[in-house]
Amino acid sequence: MERVEKILAGDIRTAARLIRDIDDNMPGSREVLKALYPHTGKAHVIGISGFPGVGKSTLVDQMIQAYRQEGKSLGVLAVDPTSPFSGGAILGDRVRMQRHGTDPGVFIRSLATRGHFGGLTRSTRSAIDVLDAMGKDIILVETVGVGQDEVDIVTTAHTTIIVLIPGMGDDIQAIKAGILEVADIFAINKADREGIDKTVNELRMMLGMNHKGDDAGEWQPPIVATEALRGKGVPELLEKIEAHKAFLFDHAGTHLRARLREKAFRELVDIIKESLVGKMIDELKQSDEFEKMIDDLVEKRTDPFSLCERIMADRLGKRF
Amino acid sequence: MERVEKILAGDIRTAARLIRDIDDNMPGSREVLKALYPHTGKAHVIGISGFPGVGKSTLVDQMIQAYRQEGKSLGVLAVDPTSPFSGGAILGDRVRMQRHGTDPGVFIRSLATRGHFGGLTRSTRSAIDVLDAMGKDIILVETVGVGQDEVDIVTTAHTTIIVLIPGMGDDIQAIKAGILEVADIFAINKADREGIDKTVNELRMMLGMNHKGDDAGEWQPPIVATEALRGKGVPELLEKIEAHKAFLFDHAGTHLRARLREKAFRELVDIIKESLVGKMIDELKQSDEFEKMIDDLVEKRTDPFSLCERIMADRLGKRF
Repeated sequence: MERVEKILAGDIRTAARLIRDIDDNMPGSREVLKALYPHTGKAHVIGISGFPGVGKSTLVDQMIQAYRQEGKSLGVLAVDPTSPFSGGAILGDRVRMQRHGTDPGVFIRSLATRGHFGGLTRSTRSAIDVLDAMGKDIILVETVGVGQDEVDIVTTAHTTIIVLIPGMGDDIQAIKAGILEVADIFAINKADREGIDKTVNELRMMLGMNHKGDDAGEWQPPIVATEALRGKGVPELLEKIEAHKAFLFDHAGTHLRARLREKAFRELVDIIKESLVGKMIDELKQSDEFEKMIDDLVEKRTDPFSLCERIMADRLGKRF
Repeated sequence: MERVEKILAGDIRTAARLIRDIDDNMPGSREVLKALYPHTGKAHVIGISGFPGVGKSTLVDQMIQAYRQEGKSLGVLAVDPTSPFSGGAILGDRVRMQRHGTDPGVFIRSLATRGHFGGLTRSTRSAIDVLDAMGKDIILVETVGVGQDEVDIVTTAHTTIIVLIPGMGDDIQAIKAGILEVADIFAINKADREGIDKTVNELRMMLGMNHKGDDAGEWQPPIVATEALRGKGVPELLEKIEAHKAFLFDHAGTHLRARLREKAFRELVDIIKESLVGKMIDELKQSDEFEKMIDDLVEKRTDPFSLCERIMADRLGKRF
């Protein structure tokens, strides 16, 4: 396929069009992704998430600059699952990254699809594969993180950074346990603000409580204080990312392998979900009974659980 | 079933336990929901969403009080899909509602499930059905709205309120089009803040642009200025909710019917998704090939799209 060759050669226009097609769930993009898949797995994927206003985009901007100074090529995905209710701040921040737009070593794309089965996480994974196949050394995936969507997205990465700021809420303990599980590194941005020590200490305490014994084979998420606006703490952040990468490859790569298996499983589940449910619903909508089924529900002649059981039995036989 | 009878009689403990079982996806809860379904459809369900910090919980608190003064019974669901990254503010705010905890006419529950197929939207719908079957006049569903999850959740309501505040971002036009489609009513809270006129005007302009001609049969989302902390604007908000309810029942109920059909369809899709994908994945995980499939993906011997096609063909035959 011509598209495949072009992307493997790093062609920006073809890659940009494919990522847009993926985001729009266009037919044909799947075949290209299949052909690209064997060429993926070389890039280090870094996920960055946190509440709006913590300065993620500024931090990403500084990371881009630092990686460029090391001579590394970058792909950057700005993923925005917050579409309907997002404020202007998010869009505004991202403009800041655009100063790298003229650097041929940096390829920045936005993703914002929603509404189709499989959704944004699947699109993000596929877009990562495209950037990976293009030969990018580092792929940064930034998302405005508050919900399950964002957790799913950032955990498509090899290394996940959660950005916090001092004084978030009265008490950082209100941040639920989930965050401790997904974060490989914490960046406490706006570190010049009051309350930085308290935030770091509280976070450290929570991580300590979460820590299961002194298992040397486990990764302990480090906490890095940053001031993204002035680039402070960014070299240290990059060091920690490198350390996490080394950890993944340590111990004969068992940690990396476990993570890759988990990622592969999740991707498969999402694709099955998308294909299976999409097809089932399409079939259902085209069937003669469809209108009557919905009427039956509205009129309470049946309930959706019993109807679902009947549909599955009718269409898929005894297996379901 | 004893549980069904008790819930129809309004028994709080049984209802609370069922809602918890639904949230935990416990077996058995589905059968109770089936039996309750014919008894649902009487309550008016109001969804309230908006960014953290806009004062939603305070507004909900004031709405509860106002409805109680009208002698109406209420069910309140506080839905929190933001688990991993949520700050303390959200939890703190909700404490405010608890002053109604001792009022037998108000039944407040929280939902926070995530991670199982179907997820939070399905749990929310089922919890609404429980409150509805209990005989509540009004059901308020509050969610911290920024993502697709929250849109799905608030659109399970008959009337959806989006809460904004003046000066959200530099420009309210950055709020994407999706919000115009889901909102039946806009509440601009903290209306004493600077910029209220600008926000209202900009929102009005956007709504005007979105308005397709002068179709008298269409609902135009009103904008209500509120100061939840002092209860200002709350009576007007309740009037608009009543007007929207009247609109739904107008025109021989065609709008209501369209909305109920859409809701029924979405609920059916979610239940099919949950059942179908859940079963397929369970089967897959228990099969002998599973470990090898994941290995094949990690080693790039196959890609997840081709693997998905093979799995579906093997298990579901030619249909898929």
